Amino acid sequence: MAKDNAPFVSVPIILVNFKAYLEGTGEMGLRLAKVAERVWMETGVTIGVAPPPTDIGLLASSTKIPIFAQHMDAVVPGSYTGRVTAEAIKGAGAIGTLLNHSENRLQIADIQACVERAKQAGLVTVVCTNNPPVSSACAALEPDFIAIEPPELIGTGISVSKAKPEVITGSIECVRRVNKSVQIICGAGISKGEDVKAAIELGTSGVLLASGVVKAKDQEAVLLEMAMNAKS
Amino acid sequence: MAKDNAPFVSVPIILVNFKAYLEGTGEMGLRLAKVAERVWMETGVTIGVAPPPTDIGLLASSTKIPIFAQHMDAVVPGSYTGRVTAEAIKGAGAIGTLLNHSENRLQIADIQACVERAKQAGLVTVVCTNNPPVSSACAALEPDFIAIEPPELIGTGISVSKAKPEVITGSIECVRRVNKSVQIICGAGISKGEDVKAAIELGTSGVLLASGVVKAKDQEAVLLEMAMNAKS
Amino acid sequence: MAKDNAPFVSVPIILVNFKAYLEGTGEMGLRLAKVAERVWMETGVTIGVAPPPTDIGLLASSTKIPIFAQHMDAVVPGSYTGRVTAEAIKGAGAIGTLLNHSENRLQIADIQACVERAKQAGLVTVVCTNNPPVSSACAALEPDFIAIEPPELIGTGISVSKAKPEVITGSIECVRRVNKSVQIICGAGISKGEDVKAAIELGTSGVLLASGVVKAKDQEAVLLEMAMNAKS
Amino acid sequence: MAKDNAPFVSVPIILVNFKAYLEGTGEMGLRLAKVAERVWMETGVTIGVAPPPTDIGLLASSTKIPIFAQHMDAVVPGSYTGRVTAEAIKGAGAIGTLLNHSENRLQIADIQACVERAKQAGLVTVVCTNNPPVSSACAALEPDFIAIEPPELIGTGISVSKAKPEVITGSIECVRRVNKSVQIICGAGISKGEDVKAAIELGTSGVLLASGVVKAKDQEAVLLEMAMNAKS
Repeated sequence: MAKDNAPFVSVPIILVNFKAYLEGTGEMGLRLAKVAERVWMETGVTIGVAPPPTDIGLLASSTKIPIFAQHMDAVVPGSYTGRVTAEAIKGAGAIGTLLNHSENRLQIADIQACVERAKQAGLVTVVCTNNPPVSSACAALEPDFIAIEPPELIGTGISVSKAKPEVITGSIECVRRVNKSVQIICGAGISKGEDVKAAIELGTSGVLLASGVVKAKDQEAVLLEMAMNAKS
Repeated sequence: MAKDNAPFVSVPIILVNFKAYLEGTGEMGLRLAKVAERVWMETGVTIGVAPPPTDIGLLASSTKIPIFAQHMDAVVPGSYTGRVTAEAIKGAGAIGTLLNHSENRLQIADIQACVERAKQAGLVTVVCTNNPPVSSACAALEPDFIAIEPPELIGTGISVSKAKPEVITGSIECVRRVNKSVQIICGAGISKGEDVKAAIELGTSGVLLASGVVKAKDQEAVLLEMAMNAKS
Repeated sequence: MAKDNAPFVSVPIILVNFKAYLEGTGEMGLRLAKVAERVWMETGVTIGVAPPPTDIGLLASSTKIPIFAQHMDAVVPGSYTGRVTAEAIKGAGAIGTLLNHSENRLQIADIQACVERAKQAGLVTVVCTNNPPVSSACAALEPDFIAIEPPELIGTGISVSKAKPEVITGSIECVRRVNKSVQIICGAGISKGEDVKAAIELGTSGVLLASGVVKAKDQEAVLLEMAMNAKS
Repeated sequence: MAKDNAPFVSVPIILVNFKAYLEGTGEMGLRLAKVAERVWMETGVTIGVAPPPTDIGLLASSTKIPIFAQHMDAVVPGSYTGRVTAEAIKGAGAIGTLLNHSENRLQIADIQACVERAKQAGLVTVVCTNNPPVSSACAALEPDFIAIEPPELIGTGISVSKAKPEVITGSIECVRRVNKSVQIICGAGISKGEDVKAAIELGTSGVLLASGVVKAKDQEAVLLEMAMNAKS
């Protein structure tokens, strides 16, 4: 496996995926990134943001918030069109990347290649998974983070940490048999501070979420409440 | 079909695809965009650049050069991860997008949806094709530009306008039976001013190229020679 | 374009896609093919069946019904695994193939390659499309049949020929501007004889359907009623 | 994980992928399957064949040789077109399936779903991998077999068991940390009896190969020599 040159990310972490929501794109995305930056500064809880690929540079030049790409392609710099390399992500100012999100699944050989290339480029890797055996399989590839998201709960507002705690605890158990050190976070349906608290009490290092914050009427209030619950 | 809100692009055009080349990424990509801007200013010939998605914002805020995305996904703003919407492209400062590049082929229904969405968002569409019947099919979708690139010549340095003029003339003929107004450009193997001249003499509105400029030792000299040949 | 060696198929045609339904797989699929064969014999109306790839040989050796593959890959015989070539389809006993079904969309360059290869191999091509501009684009590739299926109606039981006649007539008009001779059929929501009659009265050469027959309690009664309505 | 209803396959095994080669399709594929059947009968060494999807039924009804599908899709019976379900594979007469071949890579979540569904349907699963970490990851999904094939050697005639023994031994070691019972075979460049012997001496349960047998002038002689070397 590649030497891990990725920066250290302190946990717990609240990682906000802006997806392709209008509220997370362009000027609105920048405003949300600044909200996240304030909450991070005020609470000391790590908050990361994953904007659309076209906005990484904008957020990196205008905020200090840790930025993650939403996706990376398993290609080296060269003759590829519309692909996102580790070098482009790093060059634009992100510190890490999501991989294998349920809305952008990767082939297993490509996850392995991406994890290796991202480490060499100094990017933190967060591999998304959907159940205990897949979590275990991805843990064998030694990413920095595994983010467990049961697809049936994504976007429902029903929190995985409350509705399906056994998916989280089962996945942690499966993952630990294969990999002792990977950080585990969880997602799907996280919309309140108590969901974050439940996730951490189940043994995770934080949460990955999207609409719960991006689509919230008062994004700052929601994020602040989550961060406060992550601390205690 | 959608009303075309895309900006007017004067032709002939020289459209430079930065691909995922290191020479076209980050700071190096910005430098190349400034080279292109100077040649455009000096010669009056339209030069467009297509940087990696992560660099659109950087180039848009630092130059006046017309910027094209390399790719767009056929999705509306919403719950998608790692995808590039028309809104994100427009918001980052590009004026148009390549579609269906040979290194990022699209399903036919998605090309149609992208052309329609891009027009609504005010983006110029350049649909890449590989031979006369496919050019004809894509012309029926009424994009602004068709870019014909025989895949077997891409990256070879053997110019389509000289080695396969019949692909260009045959495609123009096929396209015109279906669509009288779409602009037609061509690519593959374009590396010299005379290749550009030959392309225009065959009846095209310009060229799409990549390594011929991006990988050139003296990018400015090559681009300047091309622009001079496009004028005459 | 390739010389068309495909066999002549008399129209109107009722083309039944068995999909991956259990009722259309293995022994149950064979029984359904024999039902189709009886209705064809009794009424003289062409009925075609499209079973799963693994059942083409079984149906070809046990019935005389015209068989279509559900999908074909754009590859020549060679080093490909799990792909379906024109030669394999022909060798197993089918007379044609669906292409670009909404559940198995193809890139435009691959549709063109498949149409060309299928013609050379003597297979009838049926390219599925979703709206007027895509129908027009695919017609430019000169397949034998275009099958228009608005995706929003597939599997609903709401017949395209009754609910969206303008999609059919609009598509026919678009297609005829580009291609005078391609046969046009339509699908989505076809479940009764009157749907078939309406489709033919709108100017089509028949229908493509699936659940309306495959999932029917009395498959033979439904198919017979459809065939009777196709005749008149 | 699913209860494993798959039939017992005795090892060592020589598994021959017919790919989309003309020599492995239709009548020629049937002839090759009969060659394999004779060698199996004569030597007692398990020989499996993986024909194109369209030929599974033909081979199953004409020979007793163990048949594997080349690929399976991660879908349940239902509204899918051109997909191959576990039920269709089983119904056509195969005993197992390759998964994730380098020419038909799957997303990690789909490999897991396929392994689970195949087991329920009583199919043996052979998951192809490209290097030690990916082998380890796939082993966590508990298939029956892992088939390690370094892509850079596939089709070269340079045997992985001789040219890259460390990929085999390294993969075995990685796999055993995660899974004690999965069978491990290897492929890429296997063309002679001594390649098979070397593979088994490195600790594998056999080989997966294609052109070495399918494209051989004397298929029977090559296969017989391989089987003899597998025995000793």
